[in-house]
Amino acid sequence: MDRRKFLKGAAIGAGATALAAPAAIAQGGKQLTIVSTWPRDFPGLGTSAQRLAARIAELGDGAFNVEYFAAGERVGAFDSFDEVSSGNSQAYIGADYYWTGKHPGFAYFTSVPFGMSTPEWNAWIKFGGGQELWDELSGSYGLKALACGSTGTQAGGWFNKEMESPDDFKGLKMRMPGLGGQVLTKMGSSTVSLPGSQIYENLVSGSIEATEWVGPYNDYFMKFYEAAKYYYTGGMHEPGGGLAFGMNKAFWDGLTEYEQAVIEAACNEEHAASHEEAIAKNGEFLSKLVNDHGVQVRAFNDDIWDAMGEAAAEVFADTRAHSELAARIDDSFQAKLVEYGTFMANFEGTFINQRNRVLDII
Amino acid sequence: MDRRKFLKGAAIGAGATALAAPAAIAQGGKQLTIVSTWPRDFPGLGTSAQRLAARIAELGDGAFNVEYFAAGERVGAFDSFDEVSSGNSQAYIGADYYWTGKHPGFAYFTSVPFGMSTPEWNAWIKFGGGQELWDELSGSYGLKALACGSTGTQAGGWFNKEMESPDDFKGLKMRMPGLGGQVLTKMGSSTVSLPGSQIYENLVSGSIEATEWVGPYNDYFMKFYEAAKYYYTGGMHEPGGGLAFGMNKAFWDGLTEYEQAVIEAACNEEHAASHEEAIAKNGEFLSKLVNDHGVQVRAFNDDIWDAMGEAAAEVFADTRAHSELAARIDDSFQAKLVEYGTFMANFEGTFINQRNRVLDII
Repeated sequence: MDRRKFLKGAAIGAGATALAAPAAIAQGGKQLTIVSTWPRDFPGLGTSAQRLAARIAELGDGAFNVEYFAAGERVGAFDSFDEVSSGNSQAYIGADYYWTGKHPGFAYFTSVPFGMSTPEWNAWIKFGGGQELWDELSGSYGLKALACGSTGTQAGGWFNKEMESPDDFKGLKMRMPGLGGQVLTKMGSSTVSLPGSQIYENLVSGSIEATEWVGPYNDYFMKFYEAAKYYYTGGMHEPGGGLAFGMNKAFWDGLTEYEQAVIEAACNEEHAASHEEAIAKNGEFLSKLVNDHGVQVRAFNDDIWDAMGEAAAEVFADTRAHSELAARIDDSFQAKLVEYGTFMANFEGTFINQRNRVLDII
Repeated sequence: MDRRKFLKGAAIGAGATALAAPAAIAQGGKQLTIVSTWPRDFPGLGTSAQRLAARIAELGDGAFNVEYFAAGERVGAFDSFDEVSSGNSQAYIGADYYWTGKHPGFAYFTSVPFGMSTPEWNAWIKFGGGQELWDELSGSYGLKALACGSTGTQAGGWFNKEMESPDDFKGLKMRMPGLGGQVLTKMGSSTVSLPGSQIYENLVSGSIEATEWVGPYNDYFMKFYEAAKYYYTGGMHEPGGGLAFGMNKAFWDGLTEYEQAVIEAACNEEHAASHEEAIAKNGEFLSKLVNDHGVQVRAFNDDIWDAMGEAAAEVFADTRAHSELAARIDDSFQAKLVEYGTFMANFEGTFINQRNRVLDII
């Protein structure tokens, strides 16, 4: 056991260092340089990625020489794909819908409008054929990705007025990236994609009238409530899904089964933990927003949801038209969505709706 | 790397053996004898436990000498608690509400009526103070437990007539164990606790008129639909939560941080996987039940849910009266239930209800 104890000491030291320094090195083993799309120590997203890097070093017990670089420390966030695809680094951590410019199919491996909740998406990836399609798509770019991190259902967004009909979205200047932004564009909104650091100033100045970000926990610290008091609950644009630990495929294929098991276990663990942390924190911070800052919580009405649904159908038609693979991914996703969605509605959904009614939880 | 490769070979051999033979041995390392409450190869529950045992051996890479015994192979299922508490074996796999005869607080660490869904329960255990209370309760019996496995929201049950009012439960002979059974008893039912192997014959003979078991996947193979055509969706009695990997506390305390990390990672991974597998399989088998066997799917109406809620409140009052610790566990659980339940209803719940309405998923 002496060798194990010695290696363990090295790995734990690396784990601790991974959370504090630009690059953390676990001595010995295969080189595993990780570039992240999140800033260092960014609450939720960044801390989850750092926790993952430390855990791979710890569980690997000397098998990997882990180095972790936050966004901008080695390459810019959006350069991570090419950095890993080329083999210059071994892995990235990010949201695969960042790469829809490469292929629109990547959107399904993060979250799509009117898509799956996180538990449904997990079932699709692990037991419903999702991972095989993800492998096919990523593999064509020299990558292999695993699910690793989830924020759960995101909020509909922050507005400076009540949204009472689909017409209220016409001409609305709103920050919403991705396929969700395309849905609002089809509804007549003027959508923009801004990095997190620029949203607050644009909202306060009136350059935008509305924005979405993540959920109560992350949104709380952005102080959007100073300029927009109406906070809409679960939105259609990012209902759930996952973030990605994307590896260079040749690196992955060269690992032993044991080494692959270590990375799988660490990713599976962190994927669950980040979702659980979001549920725990969002409940707490939703209360703070309402009680400490007078935020008005609203839900979109049926007319608005119906209009969003029609617009989303057009967006999916555009996506399917891209390629045979995009259509095949959409086929698999939508079929499992109906199958799992029916089950979840009749079981967990029925229970939660009745429990909350009986216990007066609103 | 030679030593690692050699150890890996041994561990993988053990993993394969764990799924097939009465006892699987990974050579070298600390002794980890696991006794399970599930029969060997029992779909879902048993296969999940065997997957866990194999994964601990694989990830430990020689750190543990893993032996796995299914129910009855070393001790009877319900003798597992004493077997591990005494240190005769190192760990059990089961549902901690089996031990409510020792202390009623154990119910909260599996599932309780009108309790949490699995994602909510996970958040409570990992980020809401649940694990600390579990440690306090288990620790007083010389045990340390980790969450490991979940079936999701269980079905309300199988009935040979439609249940139209709370009065229909008066005098009903139904199989339902645990606190859920106590709720129905307070509603006037005559509840019994039967092991899975005896339910079918009692239902066909008319000794019982109704039963619950797990969910569509597990229930499908029990063929209850031959005697009871009405299948009720998500019930109040086991809405979600988790199964337990319960270890002897002195064994756990004697592990290195690395060894503890291996067990934590394997449990966290399997806890997520079993829930995801349930969602994937339940959707598929709910369709089969309806389309191939003419099962009529129903939901309890509001009057029935209200009556169940009143009866459950009485059951919780009984439980709290047991001890200071039972009351303290209930305080924590119910407070987090309201906090997380509010968030989930407003975000994931709002989204799923609207998505299913817009997409006509029912």
